[in-house]
Amino acid sequence: MKTKILALSLLILMTLGSLYSQPAESSLSTDSLTLMPWPQEIEVEPGFQIIDTDFRLAISIVGGETKAGAGSRLENASTRFLRYLTDKTGTFLKAGYPVSGQVEGATLLIEIEEKAVLELGNDESYELDVLANKISLKARTDIGALRGLSTLKQLISVQNGAFGFPQVKIKDNPRFPWRGLMLDVSRHFMPVDVVKRNLDAMAFVKLNVLHWHLSDDQGFRVEVKNLPNLHERASDGMYYTQDQIRDIVTYADERGIRVVPEFDVPGHATAILTAYPEYASNLNLRYSLERNAGIFDPTLDPTNEEVYSFLDTLFKEVTPLFPDAYFHIGGDENEGKHWDENSQIQRFMAENEIPDNHELQTYFNIRLEKILSKYGKKLMGWEEIMTPNMPKSALIHSWRGVNEGMEPGESLIKAVKSGYHTILSNGYYIDLMLSVEDHYQVDPMPEHELTQEEQSRILGGEATMWSELVTPLTIDTRIWPRTAAIAERFWSARDIKDLDDMHRRLMATSQKLEGLGIRHIQVREYLLRNIANYKDTGALSDLVKISEPLKIYTRNSGGTQYQVYSPFTLFADVCTPDAVDVIPFEKEVTAYVETANESDPVALKEYLGKWATIYERLLQIEQDAPLVGPVLPYAKRVRDVSTLLLEGLDEGKLRKKDFVVIQDLLQEKDDPRQNLDVELAVKDGILDLATFLSDK
Amino acid sequence: MKTKILALSLLILMTLGSLYSQPAESSLSTDSLTLMPWPQEIEVEPGFQIIDTDFRLAISIVGGETKAGAGSRLENASTRFLRYLTDKTGTFLKAGYPVSGQVEGATLLIEIEEKAVLELGNDESYELDVLANKISLKARTDIGALRGLSTLKQLISVQNGAFGFPQVKIKDNPRFPWRGLMLDVSRHFMPVDVVKRNLDAMAFVKLNVLHWHLSDDQGFRVEVKNLPNLHERASDGMYYTQDQIRDIVTYADERGIRVVPEFDVPGHATAILTAYPEYASNLNLRYSLERNAGIFDPTLDPTNEEVYSFLDTLFKEVTPLFPDAYFHIGGDENEGKHWDENSQIQRFMAENEIPDNHELQTYFNIRLEKILSKYGKKLMGWEEIMTPNMPKSALIHSWRGVNEGMEPGESLIKAVKSGYHTILSNGYYIDLMLSVEDHYQVDPMPEHELTQEEQSRILGGEATMWSELVTPLTIDTRIWPRTAAIAERFWSARDIKDLDDMHRRLMATSQKLEGLGIRHIQVREYLLRNIANYKDTGALSDLVKISEPLKIYTRNSGGTQYQVYSPFTLFADVCTPDAVDVIPFEKEVTAYVETANESDPVALKEYLGKWATIYERLLQIEQDAPLVGPVLPYAKRVRDVSTLLLEGLDEGKLRKKDFVVIQDLLQEKDDPRQNLDVELAVKDGILDLATFLSDK
Repeated sequence: MKTKILALSLLILMTLGSLYSQPAESSLSTDSLTLMPWPQEIEVEPGFQIIDTDFRLAISIVGGETKAGAGSRLENASTRFLRYLTDKTGTFLKAGYPVSGQVEGATLLIEIEEKAVLELGNDESYELDVLANKISLKARTDIGALRGLSTLKQLISVQNGAFGFPQVKIKDNPRFPWRGLMLDVSRHFMPVDVVKRNLDAMAFVKLNVLHWHLSDDQGFRVEVKNLPNLHERASDGMYYTQDQIRDIVTYADERGIRVVPEFDVPGHATAILTAYPEYASNLNLRYSLERNAGIFDPTLDPTNEEVYSFLDTLFKEVTPLFPDAYFHIGGDENEGKHWDENSQIQRFMAENEIPDNHELQTYFNIRLEKILSKYGKKLMGWEEIMTPNMPKSALIHSWRGVNEGMEPGESLIKAVKSGYHTILSNGYYIDLMLSVEDHYQVDPMPEHELTQEEQSRILGGEATMWSELVTPLTIDTRIWPRTAAIAERFWSARDIKDLDDMHRRLMATSQKLEGLGIRHIQVREYLLRNIANYKDTGALSDLVKISEPLKIYTRNSGGTQYQVYSPFTLFADVCTPDAVDVIPFEKEVTAYVETANESDPVALKEYLGKWATIYERLLQIEQDAPLVGPVLPYAKRVRDVSTLLLEGLDEGKLRKKDFVVIQDLLQEKDDPRQNLDVELAVKDGILDLATFLSDK
Repeated sequence: MKTKILALSLLILMTLGSLYSQPAESSLSTDSLTLMPWPQEIEVEPGFQIIDTDFRLAISIVGGETKAGAGSRLENASTRFLRYLTDKTGTFLKAGYPVSGQVEGATLLIEIEEKAVLELGNDESYELDVLANKISLKARTDIGALRGLSTLKQLISVQNGAFGFPQVKIKDNPRFPWRGLMLDVSRHFMPVDVVKRNLDAMAFVKLNVLHWHLSDDQGFRVEVKNLPNLHERASDGMYYTQDQIRDIVTYADERGIRVVPEFDVPGHATAILTAYPEYASNLNLRYSLERNAGIFDPTLDPTNEEVYSFLDTLFKEVTPLFPDAYFHIGGDENEGKHWDENSQIQRFMAENEIPDNHELQTYFNIRLEKILSKYGKKLMGWEEIMTPNMPKSALIHSWRGVNEGMEPGESLIKAVKSGYHTILSNGYYIDLMLSVEDHYQVDPMPEHELTQEEQSRILGGEATMWSELVTPLTIDTRIWPRTAAIAERFWSARDIKDLDDMHRRLMATSQKLEGLGIRHIQVREYLLRNIANYKDTGALSDLVKISEPLKIYTRNSGGTQYQVYSPFTLFADVCTPDAVDVIPFEKEVTAYVETANESDPVALKEYLGKWATIYERLLQIEQDAPLVGPVLPYAKRVRDVSTLLLEGLDEGKLRKKDFVVIQDLLQEKDDPRQNLDVELAVKDGILDLATFLSDK
């Protein structure tokens, strides 16, 4: 292996001198590198630095004193780096911590110029130079050094039977300054440890904003001492104490991640009104926490002066918990039903010449902006806040797209042309259970004529993890690994977009994330054991590899199939987008079809043969495992389709009658599967194969 | 299955009327029950209550108002119960929370008389009555009700393809009031989430004391605002904030678990002296955190009045964090070397007529008891504090045994005969990597003539999880499932001791613990993936099933093979006591030997055949997985032994020469395996088989 790498690297050196960027076009020398996000500039040298027990890490502040403690953020990150290296490679380091005052002898020398205060626009650039027995990591700020340490962690790999670092020169910096993940902790509460381990993973792929969706119809998740009903009556006892919030914000800061809280008003307010119904637009309702999913009517009354006192009290208490300059007030999906029905509100609008609900909400938002400004915060909100009178200082969060009857990026373009700064989430809704390819191909910068200035107003984007169908147990399986590819879209050059190479690196990144404590792999194995009630999980596992959860909003149609307390330990919860057998199976089908059946399709038969046995294998455990029951009708159809195709392959063609049967089996839509909620992800490949065999 | 259960149950009803306790002697009707700890009285009825969507839970305070909120401890535990049931069984409950004021329609009615203040000696008794479509859970206190809910969780099982509860009548209460788990968070720090999930598991098996070992030579783990050097200089940045401590204490209280903190003095004080070296008995040393394991010399100076001011300041600040009456001051393993060497201390002893170091430590302890008493705390300490002048109010923690040159239980008997209350940890050192059988057969009540009063002074016991070789990643694999069997020893009747039945129930309990979030199963799979570098883990997995980590203190001889920052992601870390193939393999050997080789030993050959392939399978992944390298010499010996035995079985006998070779392979002691640190757990079975074949 070493020889091959060396030879290839030499070849490249001779022909190209050095090699920059774009892994897809240079797979010869970078196919051993699995970095994600891909750096802006990377030069691969021949050679490999083996990690041994003498590996030593030192930190230096250029122009300052030379010591280990160059600020706790970098020192702690360096210790975590050493621990990651140790656990991954099994190396017994002699120096388990960053060494002090021994810069000369260091294997890895980290040099920074200053410790930054975390904020939008921090210098995150770094330069990394891996030589035969030295590594230099230079950055202007400690935050840049953190990004470089993430790269270095990702470089750990195996050559010739040993762990080490490939020799590379990297110059790197982000394309966009705002690279976020939104966590919805209202619909399903996410305990501190869930948030923390996801912050670790975010840092690993260089995301730098945790957008924390803290209130919605299903729960208000923050302790508010001056408004105690909020956490006492509107959280089912599941909320963050202020101590816990400070703990998480500190944890994020240590990783160079800003925390932007969201308190969603005036809509999505059922929880707030459960606590304080006197601020509702409809005072005749009895409010209680929403248990279903959807868009609901409870709304704050923007014409009630007490509402602003209430929000002032709330913001006054919570804004100090969040040091970041930005504060998200939601503002989405208020359909104004209760405003229309309230004669007092209608009178207020008439008296104040407010023409419609949009402008009433603008009136509300402008009042909020003044309050937030008093507490040193900049207002941001979902795109609905962008009404004609909204001040240009507001940050517009673009989210709607074809699912909401809009063009993709429509509000984003409108925002920057109107003079707003903006970030994009449309296209990055990871709760929709779409393929990573769908998200990866969305760019925050639209294919639209924009001036340089307009372009500069696009700050970046955020993946959004809405949690209607996600629990603390399953959330890692929903966020990762797909979000790593989105993180690359936010960090790397626009032309880093080869899908095959993305998949290759994403697979490796997924494995590395497990080393950081992300549970996306382990939880799926546990869920299979739970479904199989600790009997053999082999058949379920085979079925998971070809099944994906229903996409967009079809799994929970009407929002009432699942309540917040429903089980999310079902077969659909084990399944993820990008089921692993899909791409290899489809390649086999293509190869078979293209060669017109000239050779025996061994691999195809193996797939189909395996699928044909799933149903019978499930029957063997069904009696001991009640959760297997609901899977059986689906497994039976998979068996029937597979069996027919196997016969077709054996005979070299498929009878028309059987082709129709296969079509029927695949199209079955009204199947009362109820709790299964998955789709057969190899359906296209199967139809291609069936069509080919049938046409012959 | 249902028919069988019914028939058996009817049989029992006819013959016995009802059936009490002792699962081993009544396996006919209780072999579907996997409760652990086993209840004091249990009557199994025919029938099974199927769990369906209408399952409703209500709480009632007898003689009080009837409402859902019978105090947050029980209400929250009830909600957790419903969530556990939902996740386990996939049931879409209509009522996802305890219902208010609807006692009549409840499936499960929980009735309590009072909400208890958590303390030693709480009434933890409960009565559980599962009928065809009703469940009654009655307890005097909410803590008793919590214990009953744990039992009910454990009763969830499958009959006839459906989840439900077997019909049982249970009357239950603990044998001992003090049932603890000690967590050492000094040698390896354990973050909040590790502690919390282990509290969940403790509650599940009815343990009720978390003994939190918070300081030692390797780290001081508590934020102390008035003595900030402690957490700032003596923790490597890994400590609990006071907010986090309050969070954990509340979390434990919600589960009916007392928290007893330990601050270990005057020995085990390297961390304290790293922070405040002026309190040392040797003022000439430069103290820094200990990185190795062992017994070290740094000791507080008991003749220095400032030391008592320091401890007063410390205890004044930390005692309010821990509401429990007991406070553990350690007091163990002080060998007094620095006392002997300090002329000022020697002079003090002479002046005050203190004859030896033991009495000097008593002087120290008595001073501490006065300080603690001021803050409302009772002193407890390891058995070394039991010197002639020690007040009888102290609680003696008995821990030494044969490994320390003492008789098992020696100090326990001495303590109760001297008038002290005591708890036992000798025999429950789960860090020693012994079989669960070893721990299970140790009873806190010694086989020694004791008066009723003396017996009553034995309050219970504690399993101890010392963390020299344990990290946050692996700790679950070390604590569970073995501690469930120790919990049974502390709770259940003395005569519940059948080993086969314990193993049967322990296996089921292990699986149930995964549903509570314990990671003991998942982490081992992850570690195998890490060792195999995400290549096939099959061969490693087969090897793990016959390998156990070195026992007692042999893995880390001298305490210097591993530092606190060494890797604990090695093959030995995946292995656990009670390797799963050992008992079944040994049964096959016994059967073969006893039938004198009359039938073809198919199962034996399968085991040996599998083991014979491990080495070659490992070779296939070695180049990509450097951590496999150190495993190879061991795997090779396993292959060689297995191959010789397979030949022996085929030929019906083993040549003397080969027998000697096998003996040699098994006895190899000086093997430079370095980082492997395991033993072949099927060695006895292999030797038996080899001997039998060789003797023929």
